[in-house]
Amino acid sequence: MSAPVSYHMTPDEFRRNGRAMIEWIAQYHERIESYPVFSRVKPGDVRASLPAGPPLKGENFEDMLGDIEKIIIPGITHWQSPNFFAYFPSNTSGPAILGELLTAGLGVQGMLWATSPACTELETHVLDWLVDMLGLPSKFRSESAGGGMIQDTASGAAICAMLAARERATDFRSNQHGCDGRLVAYTSDQAHSSIEKAAMITGIGRSNLRLIETDERFAFRPERLAEQIRIDRNNGLVPFFVSATVGTTSSNALDPLPDIGAICAREKLWFHVDAAMSGTAALCPEFRYIQNGLEFADSYCFNPHKWMFTNFDCDCFYVADRASLIKTLSILPEYLRNKATESGAVIDYRDWQIPLGRRFRSLKLWFVIRYYGIEGLQYHVRRHVELAQEFARWISGSGDFELVVPPPLNLVCFRHKRGDDFNKKLLDRLNESGDLYLTHTTLNGRYTLRLVVGQTGTEERHVRRAWGKIVATAGELEN
Amino acid sequence: MSAPVSYHMTPDEFRRNGRAMIEWIAQYHERIESYPVFSRVKPGDVRASLPAGPPLKGENFEDMLGDIEKIIIPGITHWQSPNFFAYFPSNTSGPAILGELLTAGLGVQGMLWATSPACTELETHVLDWLVDMLGLPSKFRSESAGGGMIQDTASGAAICAMLAARERATDFRSNQHGCDGRLVAYTSDQAHSSIEKAAMITGIGRSNLRLIETDERFAFRPERLAEQIRIDRNNGLVPFFVSATVGTTSSNALDPLPDIGAICAREKLWFHVDAAMSGTAALCPEFRYIQNGLEFADSYCFNPHKWMFTNFDCDCFYVADRASLIKTLSILPEYLRNKATESGAVIDYRDWQIPLGRRFRSLKLWFVIRYYGIEGLQYHVRRHVELAQEFARWISGSGDFELVVPPPLNLVCFRHKRGDDFNKKLLDRLNESGDLYLTHTTLNGRYTLRLVVGQTGTEERHVRRAWGKIVATAGELEN
Repeated sequence: MSAPVSYHMTPDEFRRNGRAMIEWIAQYHERIESYPVFSRVKPGDVRASLPAGPPLKGENFEDMLGDIEKIIIPGITHWQSPNFFAYFPSNTSGPAILGELLTAGLGVQGMLWATSPACTELETHVLDWLVDMLGLPSKFRSESAGGGMIQDTASGAAICAMLAARERATDFRSNQHGCDGRLVAYTSDQAHSSIEKAAMITGIGRSNLRLIETDERFAFRPERLAEQIRIDRNNGLVPFFVSATVGTTSSNALDPLPDIGAICAREKLWFHVDAAMSGTAALCPEFRYIQNGLEFADSYCFNPHKWMFTNFDCDCFYVADRASLIKTLSILPEYLRNKATESGAVIDYRDWQIPLGRRFRSLKLWFVIRYYGIEGLQYHVRRHVELAQEFARWISGSGDFELVVPPPLNLVCFRHKRGDDFNKKLLDRLNESGDLYLTHTTLNGRYTLRLVVGQTGTEERHVRRAWGKIVATAGELEN
Repeated sequence: MSAPVSYHMTPDEFRRNGRAMIEWIAQYHERIESYPVFSRVKPGDVRASLPAGPPLKGENFEDMLGDIEKIIIPGITHWQSPNFFAYFPSNTSGPAILGELLTAGLGVQGMLWATSPACTELETHVLDWLVDMLGLPSKFRSESAGGGMIQDTASGAAICAMLAARERATDFRSNQHGCDGRLVAYTSDQAHSSIEKAAMITGIGRSNLRLIETDERFAFRPERLAEQIRIDRNNGLVPFFVSATVGTTSSNALDPLPDIGAICAREKLWFHVDAAMSGTAALCPEFRYIQNGLEFADSYCFNPHKWMFTNFDCDCFYVADRASLIKTLSILPEYLRNKATESGAVIDYRDWQIPLGRRFRSLKLWFVIRYYGIEGLQYHVRRHVELAQEFARWISGSGDFELVVPPPLNLVCFRHKRGDDFNKKLLDRLNESGDLYLTHTTLNGRYTLRLVVGQTGTEERHVRRAWGKIVATAGELEN
């Protein structure tokens, strides 16, 4: 970009094209409600609109902008629509988008402190801010023996936690000698699939991951954990890792961290806590009870890319003992040696994660926190929870629908009383309408609809309209 | 952004702030040569400029823009400077930056086809384009049994390849039962640290990774591989995976893929090829020889985020048999079930990677390929190689310096004849000048300087000035 060499986009072209892209994005968000939320294309439709081969000669940027509307938009499921109530919000915001733009514009690598000190230091600093903002235990602050950093996802965080636990449990021999099939991990039968995937990836094996039974609210039953640990020890196995969830994916269940944590402390197991979506709620003091018991945790993560207006990817990962994590993941080949690393005075985040390279992801998080302020973030989290609770009251007050479980925060699990087939048809019909998008899960073996309130632009009118649409569509199907 | 709710950035504010950010980035690239390439801050300097705590009230976006220049820029090592010759280029470009901006603006998740069909289909399509553009074996095209996708990094690709190999070698039992310590992997003693890290992460163990000796050009010695496999089999171990490199990190060595591949085929081992930086050279027919032997490979990766003007992260990962990879990494919890997945007619890329979530990374790659065209990309790759070769000739023609190895492409390894201490001092002095940035490695036990030509804006005058500076600084140190 900086030089007048042929083929490159000159700074002036970048200005012109950049302004056009900004304008396109602004308009996209202004008209986002005019699109069907759930994409209607059929498999292969998008590819059929693309040229079979790559272009020999460069094209105009204007043509690319035109193709976004023509080719890409029909194939988009509009996660940023205020009528998107599916999966998890994955919400974003103006400051986050511009933070990501800056990250791309600077184009630096943050693998080592030395490769751009600001990339490392801003990340450490903002992660410390979040300890204050969420009321997390101070052991997660960087001036303690612990600290925080940004992972790609909660999956990455779970793997790093499991690896550090694996190393600690084997006197730091598993990296060297591999696994021996005796280590056992624990989570609940409602935990996210990433915990199972972590057990596969790290060589622990799915058969060595115990899925502990849950209670009537789908929360981890600690007494069953204690029992299973005893059985495993009696069988000569080596329990080493427990993962609990603050807000499960299916139903937003809150695992009893204090009881699980006490067992982990007694049994000397690594205690990881995954609060991917729900951790954001702790911005508000009235919701901080969800973190009770976190004082027992060895590691913790939550995703600002789920419910904190920060575009994907941005998972905040904290450890109580950074030395274990670093010892587990550090490799220092000659080509990465440098004075700052050798001084011991800096953090090199490549030693806290799976990949070597890393982009400057804290910029968007810094922008979001500064633009909204603590007050602005609290305002929206409260509003989303209120709207979900209001929706839950409508469900409770309806003769045709029922709540599957009382919703603790912003995710409502409900069903029509006419049974699984009816609920499946209802979901399909609603999503095909394009007016809103919901997804489902299974709870107690029954098909269950999920409505999550958390999109950046979602207001009362959207939730109210969703409810009206659900009632009307159910009425049509009943006849 | 879409609604007039308090605290959010409105579309009009987004327009204004977005234009300001575009302008800031344009100016940054215009004046990038005025900054010292290597950041001069001391540990803690950046944090000392930041407020101790997070803001209660939201701030103006103008203040954030101001802080970039004031707080962030001093802590930046300018990877995009045309005087950056360190590590690997990690180059970016106008179309890539605007592609990343669009990705952030759309804010969609591409974990499943259904969660935004365009995200999956554009990725498959562009990865097929690259098979043509690079002259890769057709088994890597999506209409074969194989296919391509975008990973975060070559580290992620190596782990996925090793996992699929691990599963294949254990009749798909290692995910279930963990590792048993008998599997053995192979790479060269010049391979990237990510291969060692993959062996640690996947439970194989570093002691089960053989670092095969290299020849006088630092390339993998296939006869030593065959020998080691025989020894391991005789000891009751199970060889399962070989990783070869096209362009090693230290010295850009090209491993002899045909010989290694033939051994893998005979021994039925998974053959992975990592061409992180150098794979881009195959855009030019005259450099495609580096891929000879790729017809034996089970998996292959190269990084457009290294040398193809596409900002980090963007690693293109291909497999010859996608069924093995998908069987290895697939998990389908109820909350992800959907009609498209069940139809079997679509790709769900979450089953090709470690994390569940994924962003729309193919947009930037699509923009880069379209904006430059094949011709534009070829032009710059050729130019970078020419400039590196020219630099190598200056080294060879100098009485004081020597080439450590003939440079095959755009990375030159050289040293001053006065020995390690002198070269260390020379490197420090050069980098402290701020005029250019080089890094080092060790080859044959000797301290070696590395100069990589590959930044987007690097032209002959920058390479010429770098050489002048190197000669002058060495002269100062000699006196």
